[in-house]
Amino acid sequence: MCDDEAMTFDVKIEVRLRAGVADPEGSTIERSLPALGFDGVTGVHVGKCIRFTVEATDEGAARAEVEDMCSRFLTNPVIEDAEITVTAAAPA
Amino acid sequence: MCDDEAMTFDVKIEVRLRAGVADPEGSTIERSLPALGFDGVTGVHVGKCIRFTVEATDEGAARAEVEDMCSRFLTNPVIEDAEITVTAAAPA
Repeated sequence: MCDDEAMTFDVKIEVRLRAGVADPEGSTIERSLPALGFDGVTGVHVGKCIRFTVEATDEGAARAEVEDMCSRFLTNPVIEDAEITVTAAAPA
Repeated sequence: MCDDEAMTFDVKIEVRLRAGVADPEGSTIERSLPALGFDGVTGVHVGKCIRFTVEATDEGAARAEVEDMCSRFLTNPVIEDAEITVTAAAPA
């Protein structure tokens, strides 16, 4: 019975625009900072960070499911890269 | 001359909604997942991830400047928490 018991994993996905893709939100922040008194800031990029918990039989299965979610609808693979971190959570 | 030379630091800011604050984007993802064939996903939270490089005399000064930016305009401290990571970059 224990063999197919699901484990719980904490998942963090950092979604970033690929290099070369325009990042208007980052550009706006970067242009505004000097006027607000902050100098020396360059290369501002704004991405998304998605966190959740997922049940799976092992870490490999969890990661595979998350990669599938990412490529299907959490990210736009044409312009975005996803960095996935999967860690085992305390047993549910 | 070298004493006040600025160092470059890589900064990563993860902005997350505080516990108890409604996260409609996360809720929508969580509700949609079962219909899309992904089960066992709970606690979806969507935040922002801001990355940039900053020049400062040392890591403490860099962190202080970034904390000031966060509380003044990168985050809304009423509803958001910021997790700041500062690491020394290769010399400019």
